[in-house]
This record gives sequence, structure tokens and C-alpha cells, in this order.
Amino acid sequence: MNLYDATVPVFTKLLTGVEKWLDKATALATAKKFDVETLLTARLAPDQYPFVRQIQSACDQAKFTVAKLTGKDAPSHPDTEKTIAELRARVKTAVDYLGTFKPEDFVGAEERACSHTWMQGKTLRGGDYLDHFALPNFHFHLTTAYAILRHNGVDMTKMDYIVDLPFKA
Amino acid sequence: MNLYDATVPVFTKLLTGVEKWLDKATALATAKKFDVETLLTARLAPDQYPFVRQIQSACDQAKFTVAKLTGKDAPSHPDTEKTIAELRARVKTAVDYLGTFKPEDFVGAEERACSHTWMQGKTLRGGDYLDHFALPNFHFHLTTAYAILRHNGVDMTKMDYIVDLPFKA
Repeated sequence: MNLYDATVPVFTKLLTGVEKWLDKATALATAKKFDVETLLTARLAPDQYPFVRQIQSACDQAKFTVAKLTGKDAPSHPDTEKTIAELRARVKTAVDYLGTFKPEDFVGAEERACSHTWMQGKTLRGGDYLDHFALPNFHFHLTTAYAILRHNGVDMTKMDYIVDLPFKA
Repeated sequence: MNLYDATVPVFTKLLTGVEKWLDKATALATAKKFDVETLLTARLAPDQYPFVRQIQSACDQAKFTVAKLTGKDAPSHPDTEKTIAELRARVKTAVDYLGTFKPEDFVGAEERACSHTWMQGKTLRGGDYLDHFALPNFHFHLTTAYAILRHNGVDMTKMDYIVDLPFKA
């Protein structure tokens, strides 16, 4: 058992799934003759992050999770995306970064002390960081992004979120 | 390392947090003079589950996850809730069920074959069931419930979702 399994393949699959969401959003925009870029700033409440920031946050959560759990320094990915094409590229950057990790990088990850600047010197055990912070946050932002598109009429079902399952038989 | 840590305490904490969401929803209804029960059927898209069903689904996901991973039969909790008070009781039922589990129940859970009727005889390794199905589904439904309340003006922040973190120091 290795925290690689709970992070890299799951984040990679779910973030890759966002490509299809953006295809579906683009198809709706074409059919309804609106500018697909307007969805980037769509939000469900005025004091909530818009769609683009929800996807950026999910990408960052995936990036920081694998970096913190393995003791590496995460690369900086500034939140500068202004178009759907740029957002696709941002997702690909996160997925490509995830692809540089191997299961052996995660040896000892469960007990590694993990922290962020905003935690003001406090740390979490790696296992707790994953279960109580990283996974809830990742899914929180990605589901909110999904909900914003659904609310705007994009034709998606839960399987566009879950993608597929690694059945044994 | 034990799948108990990734399930029982996390589901318990996050579902218990729903109590506070319902308190905040009730406070908003009182202040704005609307019937809080109208939020039960609120949704973000016409072909999406309403708030009540999102919470029921999160409760069921938590219940089935711990049952499947430990080889127990999950109790039936019919989706009959029609009021906020009944929904609070449903959440408490799920939390109480989670409280009957101990870490030793999860020995071998990672390799246990897990399935649902709709999987048509196919199974997932317990670890995969948790990472690829159970956790994404749980957070998907709970975050959507949160998003429905946020969209309706309930005063919540992400920390109402995350609740608190088990810092070491």
C-alpha cells in the first residue's frame, strides 16, 4: 500500500476528464451561439471562485499534494489563464507534472510532515494531510467547477466526473 | 496504515459538519422570512438531484463504503426525509453507523473485493474502490449539496466543508 495509488492515478484521471467537460462546454456554446469564454468567469455565488479559479485550484491541489507527500518543491503555476485554450494547457501542465512521479517517490509519505505557509508552522502527518485536507480540497474545487458547468446547461453526468473504474473482473 | 483512517473519521467529521450547514440555512430562512424546507428541493440544474438527495447520497456513500470495505451488510436507510429535522436525523443515523466501526474491522480491506448490484458482477479491489469510487462520490455529493446552499445565499466558507485539521503541532 502506497499513497501513490490514492493520488497520482486518481488526480491524473479526473483532471484529464476536464478536457471532455471543456469539449462539452464548447459544443453547447456553438449550439446556443454564445461565447464559450464567458463560462470561465461563471460562478454560483458572488463571493465564490469562478469556474477558471476552481479548475486552477484543483490543479494546484493535485500538484501540491504529490509534492508535499514526497518532499519535493512544487513548481509555480501562476493563475493567468484567460481562455479555454489556456485552461486546457494549465490542466495539461498539472497532468504532466503528476506524470513525473513514481510509486517509490511515496515511500514514507504517510508519516512525512506536510505543511503550507498558511498553516503558520503547524504540520500534518502525510496520511492526515491526504485524507483530511488534500482529497477533500481537490474534490471540493473540481466538483464545484463541474456544478458551475451543469448550472449553465452543459450536458454532463456524474460519470463525466468519475470517468471510469479499474474493475478487476 | 489502515483504510479506517481514510474513511470513518473523515466521513464522520464531514457529515457532522452538515449540522452547522443546516443551522446556517435555518438562520438565513429566519432572517429573510422564507420557509427553510424549500431548500430541500433546491437544485442547480433540472436534471440534477436536489439538496435533500445529495445529502442522502453522501450518507449512503459513507455507509456503503465502510460496509463494503469490511465485508458487512449495510443497513437500509430509505430516502424518505421531507423536512430539515428528518434530514438531520438521517445524517445522525449515518454518523451513528460509522461509530460502530473500529480500525481492526478494516484489516485486509485494501484487497477485499468490493462491488454494488449495478456493477453487474464486476468487482474492485478495496483500495481502488475507495480511491476511484467511494471518495470521489462522497465528496461529489457533499460538495454539490454545499454548492446548492451557497447558490441560495447561505453564509458558508470552504472551512464549513473541511471543518478542521488534525495538526501535529
